[in-house]
Amino acid sequence: MKALWLEKEQLVFRSDVPLPQESGEALLRVRLAGICGTDLELLKGYYPFAGIPGHEFVGEVVALPETVASDQRFKDWIGRRVVGEINVGCGRCSVCRNSMHKHCPDRTVLGILNRNGAFAEYVRLPVENLHPVPDDVPDEAAVFTELLAAALQIQQQVQLRPSDRILLVGAGRLGLLIAQVLRHGGSELRVLARYSEQRRILRSFGIQEIEEDEVGCQRWDVVIEVTGSSQGFDLAVKAIRPQGTLVVKSTYAGALTLDMSRLVVNEVTIVGSRCGPFAPALRLLRAKAVDPVPLIAGTYRLEDGLAAFKAAAQPGMLKVLLRP
Amino acid sequence: MKALWLEKEQLVFRSDVPLPQESGEALLRVRLAGICGTDLELLKGYYPFAGIPGHEFVGEVVALPETVASDQRFKDWIGRRVVGEINVGCGRCSVCRNSMHKHCPDRTVLGILNRNGAFAEYVRLPVENLHPVPDDVPDEAAVFTELLAAALQIQQQVQLRPSDRILLVGAGRLGLLIAQVLRHGGSELRVLARYSEQRRILRSFGIQEIEEDEVGCQRWDVVIEVTGSSQGFDLAVKAIRPQGTLVVKSTYAGALTLDMSRLVVNEVTIVGSRCGPFAPALRLLRAKAVDPVPLIAGTYRLEDGLAAFKAAAQPGMLKVLLRP
Repeated sequence: MKALWLEKEQLVFRSDVPLPQESGEALLRVRLAGICGTDLELLKGYYPFAGIPGHEFVGEVVALPETVASDQRFKDWIGRRVVGEINVGCGRCSVCRNSMHKHCPDRTVLGILNRNGAFAEYVRLPVENLHPVPDDVPDEAAVFTELLAAALQIQQQVQLRPSDRILLVGAGRLGLLIAQVLRHGGSELRVLARYSEQRRILRSFGIQEIEEDEVGCQRWDVVIEVTGSSQGFDLAVKAIRPQGTLVVKSTYAGALTLDMSRLVVNEVTIVGSRCGPFAPALRLLRAKAVDPVPLIAGTYRLEDGLAAFKAAAQPGMLKVLLRP
Repeated sequence: MKALWLEKEQLVFRSDVPLPQESGEALLRVRLAGICGTDLELLKGYYPFAGIPGHEFVGEVVALPETVASDQRFKDWIGRRVVGEINVGCGRCSVCRNSMHKHCPDRTVLGILNRNGAFAEYVRLPVENLHPVPDDVPDEAAVFTELLAAALQIQQQVQLRPSDRILLVGAGRLGLLIAQVLRHGGSELRVLARYSEQRRILRSFGIQEIEEDEVGCQRWDVVIEVTGSSQGFDLAVKAIRPQGTLVVKSTYAGALTLDMSRLVVNEVTIVGSRCGPFAPALRLLRAKAVDPVPLIAGTYRLEDGLAAFKAAAQPGMLKVLLRP
């Protein structure tokens, strides 16, 4: 099959990749996939991954494993459109038994860790990871489910109050989804955006921007950092009020330096936040409460994957999609 | 009056310090005061403080301000033993109006920030900061109220569950109070202690120790760091499980380096924690649910304050008290 293949920080298009082997998992045909910041980091060698990258996708079910083929709950799943959660735990350790598969020490992660991903014609995932896509959610929206779930994870972890003043630092692909999720909560939300295209989209949603020099010191109840840059993190630390909560959604290249004494004196809470729940993400897409389609910057054929990656790596670039 | 005086990282005993001026606050005679880690840091110049240090104390009321002299609620307060909260906010800003005086940007802090402290014969504090000490709590216990309140602040901020596995890193003055507070919660509590005297006290309370090589990786639901050392912090980061909570009770000299990506991937929460509530601390002392008296390593006269500070700075030294 056709796929993008990453090895030793080199990405190539190949048309000779074997179909994913039968493994007790569903076989899916990829309809549309998205390039994420993590994919760009994989290419830079931040993670030691070799294989097919890609973890944001919408696909359709081609084959189900024998174990569920006779299960009535899956009887009409062949041909059905699905999205898939990306973490696959061992299912047996205490972490998995506590329903935290995504933190299983032996987990695989779609297109990121020991598991081939979705920048290919076909991909496999356990049926437990799949969520059917409602008919009225088009592929161009469904492909954002994983990213929107990551946005929702903030409220899985932190109670946001309608009276909160929330500062969102960064308005990239994830930031613009977070902003859309939060704008309906009644909070005073301000977004620090860097690029004109980001600002245009924020305005189109009626979301208020803020300039860096207006942020001030220790004024915000909740600060959400999505830039992944140490400058963004430093700004977030400066902005958070005493007893406020700083949510960190980004991974960072290298170690950050932190004045922990200041955080202790100010009793700040820092929350690391990653993958989130798919079901509410699909509900929001279906209700059109979140519209990710304006975030699409371009759609490329899988054969043009290298050009797609090059485009996605441009500063301020929004979502680049791949259509196998 | 007699007092210890700190200036330019020099501590001296003086007998010519003027009595604290009338200022609309209560005048207290200090009965007993404790030397804290923060006092030792003041002496090292970590904070730019000049004046009388000391913020842990028990005293008795000598004079009340005119504003409350006729208030029936304070009618029998002269001569009464009291302890005092150490932060004095401006009372007018939005932080104070949200009952967060301890985070007021214009606050003074007893013996730490723009306010003379308790290593003296007399000290002043607003009546709002004072808590009467029950008759059956001796001075030797009451002098620990401020530190015990700091221990209780953990549970003001973080929900600790009976099923939690809690690792306490450090068993100094604060750590031994935290351990006593937590041992009744039903959690599996283990304490990493460094000094034999700390271990002896832990054993006397039936609190289980742990050796550093038994701590392991990502195994603890809650980790509480009270060493104030970067080694202790690094150990705590290593020990906390995915989606666990790391409570940081110590201030650190200099900036810490942190692998924030790991904390994001593991969705760890870090909570900075400082001063706490006095009323529950007094309740616990009165109920003898916490017994701080075994933590007393020695009591010195104010005149011998320099020797007391020298003793308190010894590694592993427990609580050194000053009696004016």
